[in-house]
Amino acid sequence: MELLNNKKRIYFDNSATTAVASEVVEAMGPYFTDFFGNASSVHSFGQQAKAAMDKARRQVAALIGAEFNEIVFLSGGTEANNLAIRGITQAYQDKGRHIITSQFEHPAVLNTCASLEKQGWQVTYLPVYENGIVRLEDVKAAMTDQTLLVTLMHANNEIGTIQPIAEIAKFIKEDIRPKRKNIFLHTDAVQTVGKVSLDVKSLGVDMLSISAHKLHAPKGIGALYIRKGVRIASQQTGGHQERDRRAGTENIPAIVAFGCAAELARKNIDTYTRQVEPLRDYLEQQIAKNIPDLVFNGDHNYRLPNIANISFKYVDGEALLIALDLKGVAVSTGAACASGSTEQSHVLVALGLEKDVVRGSLRFSLSRYNTREEVDYLLEVLPAVVEKLRRISPLYQERLKQESLKSQIA
Amino acid sequence: MELLNNKKRIYFDNSATTAVASEVVEAMGPYFTDFFGNASSVHSFGQQAKAAMDKARRQVAALIGAEFNEIVFLSGGTEANNLAIRGITQAYQDKGRHIITSQFEHPAVLNTCASLEKQGWQVTYLPVYENGIVRLEDVKAAMTDQTLLVTLMHANNEIGTIQPIAEIAKFIKEDIRPKRKNIFLHTDAVQTVGKVSLDVKSLGVDMLSISAHKLHAPKGIGALYIRKGVRIASQQTGGHQERDRRAGTENIPAIVAFGCAAELARKNIDTYTRQVEPLRDYLEQQIAKNIPDLVFNGDHNYRLPNIANISFKYVDGEALLIALDLKGVAVSTGAACASGSTEQSHVLVALGLEKDVVRGSLRFSLSRYNTREEVDYLLEVLPAVVEKLRRISPLYQERLKQESLKSQIA
Repeated sequence: MELLNNKKRIYFDNSATTAVASEVVEAMGPYFTDFFGNASSVHSFGQQAKAAMDKARRQVAALIGAEFNEIVFLSGGTEANNLAIRGITQAYQDKGRHIITSQFEHPAVLNTCASLEKQGWQVTYLPVYENGIVRLEDVKAAMTDQTLLVTLMHANNEIGTIQPIAEIAKFIKEDIRPKRKNIFLHTDAVQTVGKVSLDVKSLGVDMLSISAHKLHAPKGIGALYIRKGVRIASQQTGGHQERDRRAGTENIPAIVAFGCAAELARKNIDTYTRQVEPLRDYLEQQIAKNIPDLVFNGDHNYRLPNIANISFKYVDGEALLIALDLKGVAVSTGAACASGSTEQSHVLVALGLEKDVVRGSLRFSLSRYNTREEVDYLLEVLPAVVEKLRRISPLYQERLKQESLKSQIA
Repeated sequence: MELLNNKKRIYFDNSATTAVASEVVEAMGPYFTDFFGNASSVHSFGQQAKAAMDKARRQVAALIGAEFNEIVFLSGGTEANNLAIRGITQAYQDKGRHIITSQFEHPAVLNTCASLEKQGWQVTYLPVYENGIVRLEDVKAAMTDQTLLVTLMHANNEIGTIQPIAEIAKFIKEDIRPKRKNIFLHTDAVQTVGKVSLDVKSLGVDMLSISAHKLHAPKGIGALYIRKGVRIASQQTGGHQERDRRAGTENIPAIVAFGCAAELARKNIDTYTRQVEPLRDYLEQQIAKNIPDLVFNGDHNYRLPNIANISFKYVDGEALLIALDLKGVAVSTGAACASGSTEQSHVLVALGLEKDVVRGSLRFSLSRYNTREEVDYLLEVLPAVVEKLRRISPLYQERLKQESLKSQIA
């Protein structure tokens, strides 16, 4: 297999970002140069832009079972999480000053909650246990008469575990809301949307964050679903765009692209069960067969179909990532947004894993464009790379020595 | 002249948004599909993205004479203005609680100031007089020992008048800062950058907002220049992108496009004096020659080279806009972000114009892609359109009657 240029390099980092689908590139193209109007303009350039945006809003709404006006377009998943958390706490600040979240949320949620703590809000960070799943009883126990917002991710971005959002929504609806109207449930579904069939109404959430570039649309665009009737304080003020919920000239080409990608995702949603999940399982099984001393992280039943998070003991994950990159295969050690820092993955730490297991973890995240041939290439190069890195690892040498001693004693 | 499709329609609304330049489309193309990595990723896809972003940051910095790390990429002009105003007031909230701005700023500034007023900040809205220019002596008079921020646009978006930012900066530097270190000057230069040569160091500002889609790059990307040493509180929290000043996956294709457009703008800056300004002047002169009862709005010396704002008395501007649109010419009645509302232009109201003059105003905003042929086509169709609308205007009939009476008496 030739691996000389980008097109032949293998990309297993689809949880960080994805390539834009060719249909999406084609759909948005004319909106840069021909139909380039400002959607707020009265003339025909403006009206064309507005019509294109309306169509895209319907497409995105359809993907998650929302209504047209429940979709707010904004610059991405981070802004969606910020608007949800800051917007709701500001709009209802006199109704309660407590937030429930988890220890392994995305930084866009964790750091936003932390910034609200500085402003006097109380935040409970729920544990996620070794399987990486929040427990309903912990949500119940954390609930106070000051709780205004529960914000929990739908699926974790590093290990892919899916949280019991529908159960939590049911508990809030049946046990809390009858007593206190103003309690809201937000879910960061950035990793889920497009990979798992999802309906906001049956899920029962009040707000849901989407990032377009995780589903083969461009970066710089996302959406927040806001259930009809839920007020939100705009965090970016100016013009009246997005029904006064998000000011700023609408990003029409990216919105058109997002709509097209949403429609493609909806039509191809079963690809993830038919094709991507078996491929991911094959990847895991073959790695397990050929490489010793592994830990597979996160619950194996309740998780996304496209993520495998594996710790290679006695190896530094970053060294492994770089070695694989030299072989033409892109993977990650954790979330891209934490890269470049020397911080340990807060997700894996929250699972209670040993430091050495955390250090040796790699995330493989697939898309519907990955092939069996690509996985086979990975399986071909990975064992030798791991073995080579272990040979220079002092910890691994120590382990070999101990095993050798053990066998001598036996 | 054929005017059947978009390519042949004439676009004189470049202050609302611009078509993306073909060089820019070409430059960003590969970043959607081949070099699509997340700039925070460690592998080579990520490193390519990072390198492309670094290049674009240098290009944008070069356009305004800034340093590399003084440029923060974000989603557009509105976010830039929000980050400047919210970010500085939050970072230095214990240093003063007073803001000076003007009555005819963009809504992204006005509404953000208004939202700070609700949080207890004092805001002074300076008058702009009939010529649409803020006076230095008014800034001096408004200054208190609580003044933390002066935010004034570089050029107005509806009438194009250029504000004496350098003089105000000099006053702040020489008269205020020696006494009080923490006073900051922000300018919304969304309409200026790329049209008028501009250097942040000689201008003397602490922050400056840029929107890429006003200079032939795509929507959804912009920048805030933040002078080295000025602290800013991030308004969008999450990952560590943009040196902790703006979280969220970097929008690489749009950033690459912005960089390319910035370089094109820098190279073509004299086109605005050589070509666009004479074309705008020709447009104004010919209109003045062929249509009676006009008011030319805004100072005629200190203004952008590409904007003409003309009031056609006894005509409803929106009706005129629509009539021109039917003839294949796109113009606007004011800012796009205020369109769709029935509000009068706050800019023209701030000039103290009569209601009827405000109502009949049109903005023609040119770009370096407009041609003499296009202006000639406008000049060909406009007089008849104005005449037709005036014929059905009761106010105009009244005026004709009075004139006829006057001439009979004379």
